[in-house]
Order: sequence, then structure tokens, then C-alpha cells
Amino acid sequence: MYFPYRLSLLYWGLSRSIGKTTQRIWGSFSKNLVLSSQTRRPEFNSFIARTNTCGELRSSHLGQEVILCGWIQYRRQNIFLVLRDFHGLVQVVIPQDESAASVKKILCEAPMESVLQVYGTVISRPPGQENPMMPTGEIEIKVKTAELLNPCKKLPFEIKDFVKKTEALRLQYRYLDLRSFQMQYNLRLRSQMVMKMREYLCNLHGFVDIETPTLFKKTPGGAKEFVVASREPGKFYTLPQSPQQFKQLLMVGGLDRYFQVARCYRDEGSRPDRQPEFTQIDIEMSFVDQSGIQSLIEGLLQYSWPNDKDTVVVPFPSMTFAEALATYGTDKPDTRFGMKIVDISDVFRNTKIGFLQDALTKPQGTIKAICIPEGAKSLKRKDFEFIRKFAVDHFNQEVLPVFLKGSRNQNSPVAKFIMEEQRLELIRLMEIQEDDVILLTVGEHKKAVRSQHYDLVLNGSEIGGGSIRIHNAELQHYILATLLKEDVKLLSHLLQALDCGAPPHGGIALGLDRLMCLVTGAASIRDVIAFPKSFRGHDLMSNAPDYIPPEDLRPYHIQVSWPTDSEAAKSSLNHPTHQQS
Amino acid sequence: MYFPYRLSLLYWGLSRSIGKTTQRIWGSFSKNLVLSSQTRRPEFNSFIARTNTCGELRSSHLGQEVILCGWIQYRRQNIFLVLRDFHGLVQVVIPQDESAASVKKILCEAPMESVLQVYGTVISRPPGQENPMMPTGEIEIKVKTAELLNPCKKLPFEIKDFVKKTEALRLQYRYLDLRSFQMQYNLRLRSQMVMKMREYLCNLHGFVDIETPTLFKKTPGGAKEFVVASREPGKFYTLPQSPQQFKQLLMVGGLDRYFQVARCYRDEGSRPDRQPEFTQIDIEMSFVDQSGIQSLIEGLLQYSWPNDKDTVVVPFPSMTFAEALATYGTDKPDTRFGMKIVDISDVFRNTKIGFLQDALTKPQGTIKAICIPEGAKSLKRKDFEFIRKFAVDHFNQEVLPVFLKGSRNQNSPVAKFIMEEQRLELIRLMEIQEDDVILLTVGEHKKAVRSQHYDLVLNGSEIGGGSIRIHNAELQHYILATLLKEDVKLLSHLLQALDCGAPPHGGIALGLDRLMCLVTGAASIRDVIAFPKSFRGHDLMSNAPDYIPPEDLRPYHIQVSWPTDSEAAKSSLNHPTHQQS
Repeated sequence: MYFPYRLSLLYWGLSRSIGKTTQRIWGSFSKNLVLSSQTRRPEFNSFIARTNTCGELRSSHLGQEVILCGWIQYRRQNIFLVLRDFHGLVQVVIPQDESAASVKKILCEAPMESVLQVYGTVISRPPGQENPMMPTGEIEIKVKTAELLNPCKKLPFEIKDFVKKTEALRLQYRYLDLRSFQMQYNLRLRSQMVMKMREYLCNLHGFVDIETPTLFKKTPGGAKEFVVASREPGKFYTLPQSPQQFKQLLMVGGLDRYFQVARCYRDEGSRPDRQPEFTQIDIEMSFVDQSGIQSLIEGLLQYSWPNDKDTVVVPFPSMTFAEALATYGTDKPDTRFGMKIVDISDVFRNTKIGFLQDALTKPQGTIKAICIPEGAKSLKRKDFEFIRKFAVDHFNQEVLPVFLKGSRNQNSPVAKFIMEEQRLELIRLMEIQEDDVILLTVGEHKKAVRSQHYDLVLNGSEIGGGSIRIHNAELQHYILATLLKEDVKLLSHLLQALDCGAPPHGGIALGLDRLMCLVTGAASIRDVIAFPKSFRGHDLMSNAPDYIPPEDLRPYHIQVSWPTDSEAAKSSLNHPTHQQS
Repeated sequence: MYFPYRLSLLYWGLSRSIGKTTQRIWGSFSKNLVLSSQTRRPEFNSFIARTNTCGELRSSHLGQEVILCGWIQYRRQNIFLVLRDFHGLVQVVIPQDESAASVKKILCEAPMESVLQVYGTVISRPPGQENPMMPTGEIEIKVKTAELLNPCKKLPFEIKDFVKKTEALRLQYRYLDLRSFQMQYNLRLRSQMVMKMREYLCNLHGFVDIETPTLFKKTPGGAKEFVVASREPGKFYTLPQSPQQFKQLLMVGGLDRYFQVARCYRDEGSRPDRQPEFTQIDIEMSFVDQSGIQSLIEGLLQYSWPNDKDTVVVPFPSMTFAEALATYGTDKPDTRFGMKIVDISDVFRNTKIGFLQDALTKPQGTIKAICIPEGAKSLKRKDFEFIRKFAVDHFNQEVLPVFLKGSRNQNSPVAKFIMEEQRLELIRLMEIQEDDVILLTVGEHKKAVRSQHYDLVLNGSEIGGGSIRIHNAELQHYILATLLKEDVKLLSHLLQALDCGAPPHGGIALGLDRLMCLVTGAASIRDVIAFPKSFRGHDLMSNAPDYIPPEDLRPYHIQVSWPTDSEAAKSSLNHPTHQQS
């Protein structure tokens, strides 16, 4: 995000409650396979030997001969076996008569999670044995032949207990974790939603899907860019944090509606919920203004939103950066929560508390407070410490917790200096209940330089950001060189391009991983990525990154600078051992 | 392509003639904007100020007030100006009356390639001034207001002479090159074709689009993998040559129909028509056999093939590897040419020519020949030298040109030892005409180990390849460790996965860049990529790869090993200066 005109922000929020995905059983998966705005159901059995998926069979299939392929989910007393594929579960009756001894042997002896092909007939379950909780619960399969396609030899753990495993184990055996309902659901929904976005952009609105390079060069301020050695001594490619330069150059090149589902790279070291590589829905348009971008994004999310979730209501409520900060105390407001920031300066006009007095004597000094409902019960000392440190680090502001009712004022040294009339006024003004806690902040209300930047905020998470770009080479040069003190030589090609008839343009990028996280209700972005890295940036399955022999580095003219013992010790302090992955 | 079961090949060819794109003028672009199998035309004017594209205006728009945005293509005597956007050209009448002096000033003074917005009315051209060669040739725009959105300050060359520039100049100013008809056509067609492929795979056949990591680890035999330094001393990611491992692991994970438009990386140094990063349509399916993959690919290409090209006829003719080699002398046959290889061993059973005698005494020794029609006229001494060297280098085989008719036998020392009856028999057998030349090869017909590998070959170019994989861990381990002597530890996760209930599976990958090259008739894959690298792997626009300061390498614990002077001299010999980029 190196572009200089992103000095101030205009925000809008999509304030829909989404909630967790609750259907965690295989049975309810079928209905989610097709977004209902899609008129035709995909053909899941083309090109292969199976006639049906396990999960699709119903009473309407009675009497049909079917070929099914799947994994053994479980077996009951050598009488039934439940076969699973991505679509769901189906019950297979293990034949007991002597003539089918070989089939029985296969079905009874194959280990759990082995891969089977069965050929048989769809029959009704005997009366009273239907399972209404299972979409295929009215039928079962009478087997004629069965083939063990691949036996499952060793499992590091039982699949059915899988959800109880640690995330590290799930990542190490990702190929098993992917068999879970939740991962199948998340990845399939992601694919469908992106496909709908493509239809909207490409087929409905004439955008051109253009791939841009990922072997690029250092950008100004690109301290977080991975470097890739080339075969020329001392020369490196870098992996770009976004296709920002390329999409602007495409606008100069007359490709006036661009989009890309773009792989981006950012080396942020160890950060929870960040990935060294991530995906952006990257969009840029010529001849557009901010309202055009807003309409585009509203239409895009409305068109692609899954039908089993709340519908998207447009236009999105929007607010300026100043409004967001003043009302919610953040530039990523979560408007679902009623925790508005209230200016309480007037309550303290006659306070005797020194630092509040000081603050109010300054030209634009204010005291503001936010009420956290039941915070006295839910927040612990370390939470307040975290909030306090965060505010100091990020906003250079002191935040103090104050308990106005209840008994926890031992944590709140300020509270005893608040006079009774002030306390009552605050309780009235902020509608404070027993066990609520207020966080009090003091500072100067600064004027924000406005630029044409905007962010898309969903339930408190920033999922998109963009701007109307500067298409004037001189202005861009001034901002880069004079205001940001960047090395303009690194961007000389872009500045030159702006002078060659660059159209006015603007765009936006949506963080797809975070968006899918919110849509599916996943706890982490690692649950919406097929093969994610751990928060230390490791692939726990393949053990990447890994040591490579010096001779493999030689063609790239690089060698490892091994740290000294003292440096290594210092480094391990920064990566405490409890952050094991 | 490190998988060991690719020991032999089965091939099929899509033997359609495609030919060069001939419509190189802007006027004929409109009809190509929408693949005609797409029922609805995209809305190109949503979200922005313009009402129409320049290229879409016709007599049916007469009297309409329009807002157009575009670039000044040319100006004629301050009377007309032609405005261009991606869609085409339109003629704008420069107003001459005093009241419109300010509009006239803008339209007359703006440099070529400046960006304009004009507001005006669509009117008929005066009788006799229509231009039937121009789709918008019946109308012109009577301007009311005009705004210079961005002046074009400096152009490194005149855009209209662009096609005459060197490729290096085109790549350096790629943002200008992209304004050409041909690049707009190529990139838009690529976007549309890929979109149709996605519709076929995702919407019609239930494939799941899954993104796989590009920060991975070294694979066995991965000598051509770029390395990416991590912040852990000595540890590196590599950029994978294909998502091969991941797509197999997805099959183990039950995501039984996967595809991805995948970015792949291969460090091959300086090679013409290769890119360090390239794109693959990557497909994998469970429970599939070879004929299933063939049907899938036939359907995929038929569905996505542009309608202004020859239609795709299915099923594709297919042949085994042995047939291809025996008949066309290559594993990438171009079946358009009638140059079949003929076994002429029998003709020389009684030859006195020593090396032919020797060859035929060997157990499977054969003499084969290919006839090049009019080769005596079209091929020069250096061409024969190239062919001879190529055959020695790649197949360890001697190839000799023989002129059986005509006068050029000075180049063909073998010819004088061929007896008259042999000469006549060869002429009869190979239907040789005046000026034809035959290329004669001698060798042993070896037995090829068959595996389930297949390639898709279009007009002599391999555009796809794949196989039915080995899903048995033991067999895979044996091949890796015993036959290929690879370090199996690098693939231990994959071997382990195969033991956990891996379904039978197979897949294919299409080289998108090469495919688009053939479809558009482009001379180089650089013409179907928005921002390609030069054949030395350089981005000539941004100057990547580039030197980066040592302090930027420090967090990655690497340093540059600068070559000594003698090494540098040796290196420059390998990159002769005429290979300037």
C-alpha cells in the first residue's frame, strides 16, 4: 500500500450479520453444492465410471443400478457400511449369503477410509429403519460387486475424531483434513463465489481478466517483499505485494476494465492470520469516480453472495474516515455492535483530574469514551493491558478502563477521582448497566487531509481498499519525491507512462481469504485456503521452507550468511518456543 | 515433469489448421468482443461517465446524445479528429464557429494520444463521405463540449508506426504497445477463452477451482526451480514448476474434480519463447481413466474455442507414441504436413554403402526417410546443417539429405552410391517430385516401455500433457527410489498420503500461453502475455531483475557471491552480445 494519496480514507460498511456455519454434518451438504442463482446443476459424474454421487440418492432412484465410488466412513457389525464422497453419505448393505462371500470379504475387511467402488441397486430401507436426519436416509444400496480401489494402510489419527486435533496436526496431514465436511464446504463455496464474481465482471460488465507478473522488481517502501535470486550476479526479482503498478499500466494501455484473481506476497514474518501469499480480487477501471467503484462493488457482492446466507442489501451504508473514527474509534467499524464512541468532554469541564484538565485546555482537546457491555465480566486484566498498549502503539493515545458500577475499581485508579455527579452523568449519558465498563481516551481531535481512498469494511474487518489514482505525472512525482521521500527512480516507468496519455482511473482490491473467512464463519483464514502456511510461514505438510544444498545456490550467485551464536540466540528470543509452528 | 511413470507416451493431435489473424485494423474489432456462444453482450459503459464506446456507434444511434472517452488517434487539418477506445474508432467533427472557440482549441491543440472526453450528438456523415471500411463510417460526432482529461506529453515513438518497432522497444514501452489492435485482441480473446473454460469446468462439470501455494519446497529433480529466501537462516522456499503434488494431494483429500489456472515457474535461463513464469490450465480428477481425460479435453476445447476460428472436431485423432515417432519422426506431430516417415530398409537390403549395411545387420536396424516437398528449392545448406545437428544432439541419429532428382547432388555425398534401381524404387515408394529432397536416417527401432502418459499436440506444438497417476505408495516409492534414484525424503508426504486411501486419479495440464499463441496466430508467446519477460528473463519496462542493496538481503541471511573476473568473462561468452535482451 505504498501509494501516497492514501492519506485519508472514506469508508463504507456492509453491516450484515453473518454468523457461523452451523451445518457441520455431511448430510446437509447437498443443497450447498449449487448456488441457487445458477440455473443448471453441474454434472458430477461425467468422464468417469460412477453413475451417481453417494450423497444424491433418494427414493426417486429406487430400482436404479448404480456405480458409486467413495471412502469407507464407518461399518456396523459387518452388516452395514457407510460410503462417503464429497457429496454426502450412503448406506451400503453388506451381503450375507454364501454366494457373495468374496464381496462380503472386501466390504468387511477393508480398513476405514479405504477407497471402494460398489455396483448395486438402490432399494428402500425396511420400514422403521429410515433415517430422517440423513438426506439419503430412505434408501440403501444392495451390492452386486465391489472393488477395493485402494486400501487405507495407516492413518495418523481417526478421521472421525478429527475436529479435536490441534491445528498443527491438521496442517501436517492436510490431505486428510480436506476430507472433513467443513473444508469441503469452505473450498467449494470459495470456488463458486469466485466463479460468480467472474461472471459478473467478465460476462455482465466487460472486464478483462489479465494475468500480471509475479517476478517483478523492488517497489518504493517494499520492505516486506520476498526476493528471488536470478542467474545474474547480484540481481533479484521480488514477489509483488499487489499488481498495483501493472493494473495502472494496463489503464494507460487502454485495457480500460481489468480484473484479476491475483496472487500477492507479503513477508511479514510471524503473524497470526496472515499468509505469506494471499489472494486479491483486483479491479481497476478507467474513467470512473468513487461512486462508480462503490456501485461496482455493491453489484459484485450482491451477485456473488451465497444464497444460503443473508442477502446483501445495497447501497452499503458509507461514512467518512472522520465519522468512522469519531463514532466507532476505528477505521474498521463493526456496526453490528452498539459500542459508539461518545464525546464526554463536557462532563469533565470542571474535573480536578490533572491529565483530563490538561487535555481540555488544548485547542481541540477532547475526552471520549466507549462503553463495553458486560465488559467487567468478559474482559480480564490482560485484555485491558492489550487494549492500552494497542492504543499507545497505534494511535499514541492513552486508554483507561473505568468501572462506574460494580466492584472492580481496583483496576481503575482514575475512578476514585471521578466525582459522584460526574459518575451519574456518565451513567446517564452512556446508558451504563451493571458490569459495563467504559474505556476513556484523551486526545486532540486532529483535522484528517482528505484523499480519494476508500475501504470496504465488513463486520469490523477491512476486506477491501482502493482509491481514485493520481493520473497526473507531475503531481505523482511531487508526492513520491517531496512528500514521501521515496526513490522515484524505482517508479520511473510508471511516471513516464502517466505522461503518455494516462486516462483517469481508479480501482479496488478485495482480500479474498478474509472475505471467505467472514462468509463461511471460519475461525481463521487457514480454514478457507487449501494448503495454508502456519503462522510462522511454514508448510507443515511438506516442511517448507527447507535447507537446500550450497550447490543449488551457486547458479544464483548467493550464499547463506549464517548468523553468529549471539545473533541466533537473539533471534530465538523473538520467536518464543511456545510459538511452535 | 518429474513423475517417473512418464516413461512412454500416448499422443493425440488436434489437427486443425488455424492460420494467422488477418484482421489487423481497429474497425473489425467489434465483432470479436463477444464470443457468439455467449448470449448476452457485456455492458461496457456501466459505472462510468461515458454513454457509449467509440467503436459501437452506427446509423441506429443517429440523433442520440453521447458521452465518449478515448485517445486521439489522428487529426485531419483541424477539421476532423478520430477518437479511439478499445472498441474501435469514431470520427469527431471539430466545430468551426466562433461560439465554440474553446472546444475547438482543445480539440486542435491536444497532442496525439491525449485522453479526451467529448459530449455531442451522433449525426450522419454528409453524402459521399461515408467510409464503408470503418464500422462507424456512416456517422460522426457533432461536439458540444470537450474536456482534455490528460494531455499526452511525450511519446518515445509514434504509435501509428508502432508495428515497425523492435520487440525490445515494444517491451520497454509495453503500456503503449498494449494500445495496438493486436494486443487488445489477443488479451481480450485470452480472457474470454479462459472464462469459457471455467464455465465448462465449474458450471457444467462440477470442478472446483482451488488455489495452491507457490511458495513451496524443492522437488526431486527440481534443478530449474527459483529459490526464495526466507527469514530463517539457510531455509528457502522454491517456486514450483507445476501444482503436481498439490493436485494429487487434493485427490487424496476428496476434492475429486480440481482445476486451476495456475501460475508456474521454471528457471531455464535464456531461451527464446519460454517465460520464467507461465500459466497452465491444470486439471485433475479421481476415478478417471485415459479415455475420460480425452473426452474432458475434447469437450473443453470445443466449448471454449473462439467462434471466429475453425470449429473443433471431436474426437481428436489419437496415436501412440510409437506410431507418432514411426510416422512423423517426432512426438509432436504436425499432421497438417504430409511428410510421413517411410521405412525404406527393404530398398537397401543389397546396398554396398557401408554404414547402411552395418545398420541393417543389427537386430532392429532400420533405414527410414522423410520427403520434403520442394526442399531442394526451399532449404539451404545451413538448414540441412541445422537438421543434422539437431538429430545428432536430440536423438543421437545421423540424418543425411539425398536429392534423387534435380541437380543439387553436390551436397549429398551418399547419392552417388545409390544404385539406379534403388533410386527409381525410392522415387516410386515416396512419390518424389522434381526438387523434392529426402532426409535419410539410420538407426535401431527400440521397444518403448508403455505408461499411461498422454500429450495433446496441436499443429506440431505440444500444448498439453498428463497421465493416469500411480496411486499405490509402494509402486511409487519403488520407481522414485530404485528406478530414478531420487531422494524420496523430499516426497515423503506424498508417499504417506498415497497410503491413506488415495483414489485412482489422473489429469492433464494445458500450456495456456502456447495454446493462445496458436489460437491467435501470434508469432511469439510474448504477444499473448500482457507483461512478458524478454528471452533473457528481463522485464525491459521496469528493469527487473535488479540490484538490491545488501541491507535488504540481511533479513534473509543471504549475500551475493560476486563472480571473479574470469568467471564473469566466461559467463558473458555464454550470453553473446547480439542476444541483447
